[in-house]
Amino acid sequence: MTLTGRSIIGSQLAEPCGKAFHAVNPATGQSLEPAYYSASDSDVNQAAAAAARAFEVYSRATGKAKAAFLRKIAEKIEGLGDDLVNRAVAETALPPARIKTEIGRTCFQLRIFAQLVEEGSWVSARIDRPDPHRTPIPKPDMRSLERPLGPVAVFCASNFPLAYSVAGGDTASALAAGNPVVVKGHNAHPGTAEMVGQAVRDAVRDCGLPEGVFSLVFDSGIEVGVALVNHPEIKAVGFTGSRQGGRALMNAAALRPVPIPVYAEMSSVNPFFILPGAMKERGAEIAKGLHASVTVGAGQFCTKPGVIIPAADVENSAPVREFVSSFGELMKAPADFTLLTERIHSAYFDGVRARGAKQGISSVAQNLPEQNAAGFRVGTSLFETEASSFLGDATLQDEIFGPSTLLVRHSSREQLFEIARNLEGHLTATIHGTEEDLREYADLVALLESKVGRLIFNGYPTGLEVGHATVHGGPYPATSDGRTTSVGTQAIHRFARLVCYQNFPDAALPGELQNDNPLGIWRLIDGQMTRDAVSSVPKVQAKST
Amino acid sequence: MTLTGRSIIGSQLAEPCGKAFHAVNPATGQSLEPAYYSASDSDVNQAAAAAARAFEVYSRATGKAKAAFLRKIAEKIEGLGDDLVNRAVAETALPPARIKTEIGRTCFQLRIFAQLVEEGSWVSARIDRPDPHRTPIPKPDMRSLERPLGPVAVFCASNFPLAYSVAGGDTASALAAGNPVVVKGHNAHPGTAEMVGQAVRDAVRDCGLPEGVFSLVFDSGIEVGVALVNHPEIKAVGFTGSRQGGRALMNAAALRPVPIPVYAEMSSVNPFFILPGAMKERGAEIAKGLHASVTVGAGQFCTKPGVIIPAADVENSAPVREFVSSFGELMKAPADFTLLTERIHSAYFDGVRARGAKQGISSVAQNLPEQNAAGFRVGTSLFETEASSFLGDATLQDEIFGPSTLLVRHSSREQLFEIARNLEGHLTATIHGTEEDLREYADLVALLESKVGRLIFNGYPTGLEVGHATVHGGPYPATSDGRTTSVGTQAIHRFARLVCYQNFPDAALPGELQNDNPLGIWRLIDGQMTRDAVSSVPKVQAKST
Repeated sequence: MTLTGRSIIGSQLAEPCGKAFHAVNPATGQSLEPAYYSASDSDVNQAAAAAARAFEVYSRATGKAKAAFLRKIAEKIEGLGDDLVNRAVAETALPPARIKTEIGRTCFQLRIFAQLVEEGSWVSARIDRPDPHRTPIPKPDMRSLERPLGPVAVFCASNFPLAYSVAGGDTASALAAGNPVVVKGHNAHPGTAEMVGQAVRDAVRDCGLPEGVFSLVFDSGIEVGVALVNHPEIKAVGFTGSRQGGRALMNAAALRPVPIPVYAEMSSVNPFFILPGAMKERGAEIAKGLHASVTVGAGQFCTKPGVIIPAADVENSAPVREFVSSFGELMKAPADFTLLTERIHSAYFDGVRARGAKQGISSVAQNLPEQNAAGFRVGTSLFETEASSFLGDATLQDEIFGPSTLLVRHSSREQLFEIARNLEGHLTATIHGTEEDLREYADLVALLESKVGRLIFNGYPTGLEVGHATVHGGPYPATSDGRTTSVGTQAIHRFARLVCYQNFPDAALPGELQNDNPLGIWRLIDGQMTRDAVSSVPKVQAKST
Repeated sequence: MTLTGRSIIGSQLAEPCGKAFHAVNPATGQSLEPAYYSASDSDVNQAAAAAARAFEVYSRATGKAKAAFLRKIAEKIEGLGDDLVNRAVAETALPPARIKTEIGRTCFQLRIFAQLVEEGSWVSARIDRPDPHRTPIPKPDMRSLERPLGPVAVFCASNFPLAYSVAGGDTASALAAGNPVVVKGHNAHPGTAEMVGQAVRDAVRDCGLPEGVFSLVFDSGIEVGVALVNHPEIKAVGFTGSRQGGRALMNAAALRPVPIPVYAEMSSVNPFFILPGAMKERGAEIAKGLHASVTVGAGQFCTKPGVIIPAADVENSAPVREFVSSFGELMKAPADFTLLTERIHSAYFDGVRARGAKQGISSVAQNLPEQNAAGFRVGTSLFETEASSFLGDATLQDEIFGPSTLLVRHSSREQLFEIARNLEGHLTATIHGTEEDLREYADLVALLESKVGRLIFNGYPTGLEVGHATVHGGPYPATSDGRTTSVGTQAIHRFARLVCYQNFPDAALPGELQNDNPLGIWRLIDGQMTRDAVSSVPKVQAKST
C-alpha cells in the first residue's frame, strides 16, 4: 500500500495543504516518510457534514448490514498483512509479535461487535402493552429501544496503535451502534493509521454505505481535535490519552452551546494489594508476575500496576522482606525499553527524577540510560515509600507512563485501609490473597469496588480480556465517566440513547419493537424478559389527557 | 403532622438559623405558616457526610431490603392522608383531585422501583466463563454488574410537588439503585416537602437503615443547591426545572475537580404535527384534545405542546382553516388559571408580551387578566406565525411555562420538513395522522426520532405513562443528557456504574454474580441471556501477562 500522508474525508483524500509532520522511529529517533499533512478547517467541516448526512442512512442500517461492514473492516485489516506489521513496528518500536497480537485483538473486537449487532438484543427493547379499559385513563402502548447518537469523534491512543486507534474499540462500538465516525489519528503512528483508515474506507465502499460513515483526519498539533469536539455535528467523543488532554476535551465539550458526552480513558496507577496469606504462600512468584506486568509493553499499558501495597510489615515480617527484596532484584536487573514517543520519553525521565527527588521516597532501582542516547530508550525504576508519605502526597497517584512503579510499605491493617480509602479513581485494583485473606479483607474489596471499574483476584491487571463482562472504566480521574466501559461489548451503550414510541402502528415501528419480533431478539415485555412475540395488543384510541 | 420549617439532616432537625422564607398560596398571594429556614453550610456538610457514611451500608442492602424501604415510604406518604393533600393544594393551587392523582403516581413509582430491585435483574449481570486451556493465554473468569454511584443530590420540581419532588422519580430511582439521597426542597412548596421528608425519614428509621440514607435541605436562594453540587461527597445530581438553572448546575458539575453527572430535565416545547389525512378526518376532535393538553395543569407540564404544526395550508385548505378556527375558538374562551409561583406568573406575562410584540407573530387569543389581580392568575394565549418567521427565530422554541402555545402555518411538505429539521432537542414530538399519512411521512418520523426522547402517534404528550418502556428524556436543551430517561424504571441506570470482578472465588462475589444464581435473575452468560446457574467453571490459575 502506498502511503499518501493525507487525511481521508469520506471517499476522498484531503489536499496536502496543512502543516506537515513525520512519524519518528522510536528505536532510532529517525523520521519516517512520507510527510503527513494537518487537516484544514474545511476538511474537518467536510468530514463532519458528510458524517451527519451519512447518519441519516447508516443509523437505519440493519444489524446484519452493520455486522457485514464490521467484518469487512476486519478482513481488510487482515489483508494488509506484513505491510501493516512492519509500519506499526517502525512507528512504535513494539515487537512484531505484539503488533500481530494487537491486530488480532482489533479484528476480534470488530467481530464481537458484529456478532452483537447481528444478534440484535443489545438495543434493550422494551414493550409495555396497552390497556384501553384501564380507568381513569386508558394505558397507552409504550415501546422503547436504544438508537445511535450521531457522528462520533474518536481520538487514537499512542499506546495501542491498532486496538485503540483508527479501527479500535471506540470506533468499533460507535459504528456498531449505528454512528458515523470521524477519527483523529495519533501523530506517533500516522502510517499505521492511514493503512487502517484506507481499509475502513474501502470497507465502506465495498458495503455500499454512504461515504461519510468514516473519515480520518491528521494534525501536527491540537487544533483539529479541538475543532472536532466543538463541531455542532459531532454528538459524542471517544478518547484514550493523558489526563490533561482528556480533561481539556471534557471541559470543551461541557461548555459547548450544546454539550456532548466525552468518554475519555485517561490515567490510572492500578493499585495492587498483596494480603498476608498470599504473601506468605507465594511472595516470590507474585514478585515475578508483578515484574512482568509492570514491564510489559515497556510499561505503557493503562493497566500497569503503578502502586503496590504489600502486606503489612508487622514485626519485620520475613515474607514481606523477601518479597520486597526479590521484586527489587527483578526491577534492578539491567533491561532496556524503548518508549513510543519523544514526549513520553522525556515525561518518563522527568517523572522518575521528580519522584526520586521527593522526601520520603527512596529509589530502589533506577536503570535510566543516558537521556540523549539514540532512540527513546529507558530502563526500569522502582520507588519505595511509607504509608504516611503516600497519604500526604496525592501526586504519588499520578501515572508515570513507562516501566516504573512504587511500593507503599505500611505496618498495620489500619494503614492498609487508610491507603485504600485515600485512593482516587483508577481503572483496576488487584488483590492477591488466599480465600481466607479474602474473607478477612471483605471490607477492602467493598472499598475498592467504589474506586475502580475492575477488581482482579490473584491475577495481573495488564492483558485485559475483551468480552461481554469486560469493564475498562473507573471513577474520575481514571476516566471521564465512571459509569461506563471503553472495552468489551457494553461499550456500545456509550454511543446510544433511549427513544420511546407511543401508540405507533406495528408497521411504523422499528423491527426491534414490532409485535411478532421479526429479529428474534430478547425484549422486556410488561417487565418480563422474553423472545416471544407480543400477543393480543388491544387498539388504543387517541384520547386527550 | 406539625410542620417545623427545618431541614431534615438524617434523623435530626437542623437548627432554625438561616434566612427564613414562607410558602405562598398562589390562589391568594398570601404567605403560609410556618417560616422555613435555609440550611447552613454545616447542615449541607453534615447531610453529605452522613450520606457518604450511609452509602457504605446502604449500597450493599439487598434488593429485598431496598424494596421494603421503598414500599414503606409509599405507605408513610399514603398515611399522611388529607393533611398532605390540603397543604399541597394550599401551596400550589392545583386542584385536590390532581394532588391525589399525583400522590398515587408518586407511590406507584416507589412501588414499581421496589418491584424492579426485588426482582433484581436490573443490574445487567454478565458472566464470561474462563477457559484455562486457551492459548496463548488462559481466558480469565470475568463477571460484571451495575453498582450504585454514591450520594445523589435531588432538586425538587416546582410543577410536580410530589411526583418529581422529595420522594419523586429521581429520589426513587437513586434509592432503588442503592444511593443515599440529599434532597433540596423547592421553596414553592416547602410544607409538602417537609411532610414527605418526614415520611421518608420515618421509613429509614422503621427499616433500620443508616440515617444518612436521606436528608432534606431548604433554602430561600440558590446557595444550598450550589454547595450540594460542589460537595465532594455528592456523586450525581437529579434536577427538574428551568434551562437556566439546569445549565448552571451542569457547568458547575462539569468544572468540579472531580466532575459528576447531572441529569437535568429542563425545557421543551413538544412539537405537535397534524398530517393531512388526520386533519381532514378529525381536525375538530384534535383541536379539542390539543386544547385540553395545552391547558392541563395550567399549562405547567414539561410535555405541554408549545409548537403546533398543522398540515400544509395548500390552496387555502378547508380542513386546516377549520382546525385553526376551532382551536382558536377554544383558546379564546374565557378561562382562568392559577400558576404555581410569582416568578412563573411574571415570566408568563413577560413571555406572552414579548412574543406578541415580535414581528411576524400574530396573537390569536389572549386572555390575560390584570397582572396585579390577587393570586397568580393568568389566561390562555395562542400565537400564530409562518414557517419563515419560525425558522428565523430560535426563541420561538423557548418554552412559555403556562397555558400558551404557538401555531406554525406553512404551505408545503418541504416547509414542514424544514421546520422539523430546524427543531432543537425536545422531550416529545407528536404526530397525528392516518396510517397512510404515516407511510407518506416515514421520513418525518425518522427525523423527529433524532430530536426527541418520545414519539407519540395520535395521542397527546401530556399525561406520561410510567412504566418499563417510558422515556422522558431528549437531546439538549430538553435535558442535560439525551441518552437517558428521568421517568420509568430505566431511570435507575442513571445512578449506577459498571464494575467487573475478575477471577474472584464464588463466595466473594455479589449474589448477582454467583454461580448458582441465588437471586434467580436474568444474566448474560457467555453472551446468552439465561436464568440458569453457571455450570462447570474451571479454576483459572493466576498468571502474569
